[in-house]
Order: sequence, then C-alpha cells, then structure tokens
Amino acid sequence: MANNVSLTLDEIYDLSKKTLLANGCDDESATILSDLIRNAERDGSVSHGLFRLPAYVTGLKNGKINGKGKPEIKKISPSVIKVLGNNCLAPVVLSKSLPELSKAAKENGVAVLAINNSHHMAAMWPETEKLAEEGLVAFACTSYKPAVAPAGAIKPLFGTNPISFAWPRPGKTPVVYDMATASMAMGEVQVAKREGHKVPLGTGLTKEGKETTDPGEIADGGVLLPFGGYKGSAIAMMVELLAGALVGDNFSYETAVKDNNDGAPPSGGEFILAISPDKTAGTNWQKHAEEFFYKMKSFDGVRLPGERRHKNRLDTGPRYINEELVNKIKSLS
Amino acid sequence: MANNVSLTLDEIYDLSKKTLLANGCDDESATILSDLIRNAERDGSVSHGLFRLPAYVTGLKNGKINGKGKPEIKKISPSVIKVLGNNCLAPVVLSKSLPELSKAAKENGVAVLAINNSHHMAAMWPETEKLAEEGLVAFACTSYKPAVAPAGAIKPLFGTNPISFAWPRPGKTPVVYDMATASMAMGEVQVAKREGHKVPLGTGLTKEGKETTDPGEIADGGVLLPFGGYKGSAIAMMVELLAGALVGDNFSYETAVKDNNDGAPPSGGEFILAISPDKTAGTNWQKHAEEFFYKMKSFDGVRLPGERRHKNRLDTGPRYINEELVNKIKSLS
Repeated sequence: MANNVSLTLDEIYDLSKKTLLANGCDDESATILSDLIRNAERDGSVSHGLFRLPAYVTGLKNGKINGKGKPEIKKISPSVIKVLGNNCLAPVVLSKSLPELSKAAKENGVAVLAINNSHHMAAMWPETEKLAEEGLVAFACTSYKPAVAPAGAIKPLFGTNPISFAWPRPGKTPVVYDMATASMAMGEVQVAKREGHKVPLGTGLTKEGKETTDPGEIADGGVLLPFGGYKGSAIAMMVELLAGALVGDNFSYETAVKDNNDGAPPSGGEFILAISPDKTAGTNWQKHAEEFFYKMKSFDGVRLPGERRHKNRLDTGPRYINEELVNKIKSLS
Repeated sequence: MANNVSLTLDEIYDLSKKTLLANGCDDESATILSDLIRNAERDGSVSHGLFRLPAYVTGLKNGKINGKGKPEIKKISPSVIKVLGNNCLAPVVLSKSLPELSKAAKENGVAVLAINNSHHMAAMWPETEKLAEEGLVAFACTSYKPAVAPAGAIKPLFGTNPISFAWPRPGKTPVVYDMATASMAMGEVQVAKREGHKVPLGTGLTKEGKETTDPGEIADGGVLLPFGGYKGSAIAMMVELLAGALVGDNFSYETAVKDNNDGAPPSGGEFILAISPDKTAGTNWQKHAEEFFYKMKSFDGVRLPGERRHKNRLDTGPRYINEELVNKIKSLS
C-alpha cells in the first residue's frame, strides 16, 4: 500500500484551484473544476478526483484544453439543446448548459442535451445527480478512446463508455449510478495497478487476447471487456451511438485518430436526457418510488446505488490521498 | 428434441387469427396480434411467437385482457404522450400510439410515450424497430412480475425487465437489440426446459438460493439473476423505475399482488423514448453511423445486434413449430 497524506476538503479544493490557475484556467473554470475534484474526493470517487488533475494540466499546457473558453448554447427545438464545448473541460460546459436542459425538461416533460467538442474525464454522477436534485430523472453517457473489445473480439473498439442514471427523491439524496460499460473503468484498473491489487477474471484480456487478473497487463497494451458479455457489449455500442453519431461527435475509434494522445482527455461528445415525472406520471410518483426503494432495501444484501457515496459525503473530515500523487500535483504550480 | 410440424408464415398468421377471433378478439385486435406472432416466428423470435398464444387466450377468456378494447391517447405536452391501454394487449396499444410518438419526436427532436394498463408479453423489437424504420433512435423497456433477484439477494424483486434499442439505417434494416436484463428471459428458460437443454451457470438460483444449470429448477420456484452482476442489476432497477413510477404504472412486485396469476400477461406500463438524429446531430449522421457499423463488422467474431433476426426474415419458407404447442393452440378454437 502506497503512503497517503491527509488533506482537508478545503485543502483539496485549494490545491486544485492553485494548480489550475497556474496552468491556464481562468477563475471561473478553475472554480468549477476544483469544486468537482473536491466533491469527487469527498464522495470517495477517488479515480475521478485529484487523480485526474495531472492529465487536465497536460491538456491545458498543450493547448488542447481551453482553460478560458466559454461554451455556446444553441436551442435546436424547445426540447433539444446543443452545446458547442469549444474545447472546455466538461464540468465547465455542464455548468452552463445543465440549467438550460433542466428548464426545457420541466417545461416540455423531456429534453436532450447534445454536447460537442468537450473534454470529459470526470465522473458523470455530478450531472445526473444535479438534474435529479431538481426533480428530474436523468441519464447520461459519453464515449472515449478504444479500450474495450466488443463481445467476441479481442481488440478494442468501444471506450470504457460510462452510463449514469439518477432518480429524484425530494428531501433525500437521489438514487444514482455511474458505471463504466467496461467490466471495470480504466481509472479503477490503473488504481488497482498502482495499489498492487489483482482484478477479477473477465475484467480484460492481455495484449495477446488471453484472460488475466493482472491490471498492469490490461492497462499496458491489453484490452478491457464489456461487463456482462454480449448484453453489456450491446449497451456499450448504444453509448457509442448516443454520444457519437446521435449528438454529432466522435466515436471512440475516431477520437483515437484525432487526439494527440498526450494522456489529457480528448475532445468528444456527451448525451444527456432529462425527463420530468410530474409530466409523465402525474402526481404521487415520489411516494410510489419511495415504496419501491423501501421494498428494495428490505432485501438482505441489497444497497441502493449511490448510498455508499452519499454516506462518504457525511464525513467532513480530511481525506487520505496518495502522497506521490499530491507531490506530483504540487510540482505543477 | 420434441417433434415439430411445418407451418407456412400464412398458416401461422391464420392459426393465430382464428384462435384469437374464437376467444374474444375483434378483427382489428386479432389482425394486429396475428401479424406480430407471424413476424416473431418469421424472425426466429420463437419464445415470443406462437408460444405466447395460449397465455393470451387464457387472459381473454378470463376477461383480464380486453380483445375488443381501444386505447386512449392523451397528449400531455408536445413531447409527452400518455396512452391508457384499457386492458388491451400491448401490440394493439402500440399500433395506435407509435404513430403519435413518431410524429412528436420528428417535430420536437425527442418524445416519450408513457403506456399504462397494457398487457405486454411480446418481444419489444417490433416497437423500437418500427420507430427506427421512420428514421428515429428508439429505446423501450417494460417490467413484469418478480423473477430476478437484485445483485446480492436470493429472492426475486425485478421482472425479467427487457430493454430494446434501435438505430435507424435508411435503406437498410435497423440495428436493434431486445434483451432481458435478466441473464436470460424466462421465456428462453422455459424453452430450454421444454427442449431439455441446460443453461449456463449464473443464469439463476434454485429456490434454496443455490446456483444451478437446470432451467427447471429456475423456472419452478427458483429465481433468475440479472446479467452482469451489480451493473446489470442497476439497469434492471432503472427499468422498474422507468416502466413503473415514471410512467405511473406498477412495479413488478405490485403487479404480482394485483394480477390473478392465471399465466396471461398482467396489466402494466411501458416506457418508450424516440429521438430524431436530424435534430440532435444535424446532417451526415447516417454516413457517420454506417462508418461505425462497417468498423464494428470488420472485427473478427463481431455481429451487429439484429442481424441474425433480419437474416431469418429473408427465408420466406415454412417454420418448424413444436407439435405439442400447435395441437394445444388448435384445441383453443
């Protein structure tokens, strides 16, 4: 186990903001991103917190990511909103466009946000959870670069292609999941490699196409597999289509060709759907859904998605961060 | 292997229609349902063809299903359509409401169809494929009665909860998947039991909560598992929420309490989403998606979802149907 250092949530925010400001972000972008990184560490989403900061800095330094850019919002129809990300990091794009999506979904009952040319390497629960906090049901997905072999193949085509879904619970934290359609997110495989853990068989293949439990063999030239065999593969394909051709942005394999492969998040699309249960269900949906969650939790061994993260959130104390990572980040400003 | 008898596609249609007319369907409903049953057999969706007819008849005879009912369509907003199924079988409800959904999605870019009080025991690809044939991206899901244990549990809570997705390919058959979020549809488990086949480990548990490869032990008092462990379980939960609380209809566990358990499909909800890529992507999405499919098919061992079914469709010859099933159906009129 690597050495960890203790940082308060404020220190995590301050370290992030100082680093981002020193590397080309304006105050607004640095604030949005630091908030997100602190929230990821707060919730225990460690593979999407400070761990991502060096990659953001690489992209900012290389001019691939615009730390001062402003996204442009286009209303295509009352229920379709398009955002040109203008090479901003996704949290900056989302901060401007989610309120528009929320407004459109509340007015029309359903709305789509089609994001183009944004750099997404964060968790996706922040966007779906935000919409759920406003009383909306939300679904989001994005692709990346090929890392996952379609069912039956031994070479990568799909990204780790996360999907996130959130259900609103007025007065409570939403039920939210955010999961790679890969058997495991590459970020988690990298953490496992760094921490010296094995991964379950079925997580991925070596570069020769053989099964392995060594995360290093998967991360270094190997390939991840979709979760759940051909069914998970069908969902990973759906993500390629929604976050690619449907929003008018890259498929993972196109991203791989266009990106400079500097390790910073590439430019790509994101698909977000928001639905108002007030319109589709009428009244009583809150009580109805709560009865279902109560039933679910009455089963031994069952946990509602998002519960562990929301429990972590209640701890306002310091977080223990990999020392090597903290030193690396401190060297960047 | 059981004995089979040869029936032409017309004979399958005629047998279905005669049986439905003799059991309380009016001509319109019988025509819609017989068309669907013939198309399921034509495409090789055998667990959703004639195999379902005896259960439909049971529901018609018991007065649970209204073979002469007419669904009522309510426009909640320009992009939300609600249909009261009035105890019609789902294909009848869909035949009336899909054109409205299609129109709304084309006009607004996105639309939701919230179906209530309909009896669904057919495949779901007919609805998503129909929308894709009109140039729309479509997603549908429905719940049923508890048959699947949430990840970590050994008792059923979720239905087999299928999801279907279709991508339009103007001039070609759409890319379509239709799959249970259970490791296997109970219909397939029943076919495996009938045909004397084993099922893969991980398909389900015995009534004592043990793993098994015997479909009979799963079908008779045991429980199915979600595909892909806790990730598949999260998707099965999403289906409960979309086809239940979001459309204002039953969760699977509520259906189990309300239904008369005569084996006929119970009353329940369905959620259908349609999106117009013309609005979200602009031009060029067809060519863009075709490049992706071409790439996908260039991988050894990879098949596009729906291909096998569409290949079966090209065979206009007779189909070989389980003799016992055919005799049972013939005895119903």
